[in-house]
Amino acid sequence: MSNMSYPCHMELYEPDMAAVPVTTVLSALGDDARLAIVRELHRDGERCCGTFDLGLAKATRSHHLKVLREAGITHTRIEGTSRFVSLRRDEIERRYPGLLDAVLGVKQGTAH
Amino acid sequence: MSNMSYPCHMELYEPDMAAVPVTTVLSALGDDARLAIVRELHRDGERCCGTFDLGLAKATRSHHLKVLREAGITHTRIEGTSRFVSLRRDEIERRYPGLLDAVLGVKQGTAH
Repeated sequence: MSNMSYPCHMELYEPDMAAVPVTTVLSALGDDARLAIVRELHRDGERCCGTFDLGLAKATRSHHLKVLREAGITHTRIEGTSRFVSLRRDEIERRYPGLLDAVLGVKQGTAH
Repeated sequence: MSNMSYPCHMELYEPDMAAVPVTTVLSALGDDARLAIVRELHRDGERCCGTFDLGLAKATRSHHLKVLREAGITHTRIEGTSRFVSLRRDEIERRYPGLLDAVLGVKQGTAH
């Protein structure tokens, strides 16, 4: 076992949106917990991972955040021992125009 | 075992779109085979179940068609021993405006 700490500027895998199939985005969004996270990020902007109050175990929350990140939906910024998550809104909009707004019900002005 | 045939006008379960959560629609669409079916229905209109050439076993195809139907995405019409499937386009559009067009890439004029 090594006692080496993680590098300060560890980066987490985030795909190029051009390489993300629409089915990957849809299946990532097609889950109640993950869509709740996306709604909070849409409403609040960047959030510290620990501040999502979803009634989930930490490991479950981490799993959902990983699915969102690997589907190109979120960006994760590491600062010290904290992780901050935000939506990759502009990139999603360029790749799949109208999708995020339709999913979040932005157009019709009511949340689904 | 009974030799009774199925009733001529057997109806398959199709939900009221008002009762279908957006996550159910998204996870139904978030699969390559199911999205391929939806693209064919979008392009061709109503199709007989047996005419989808997806390289799938019949049971697998039936499973995917059931997921789409139960998510409110397709309507199934039974005629004799055949089943005809179509998109519930107008109902989906009313419930989730812009979603289907965004998923199919209709707005940007290119398929995803």
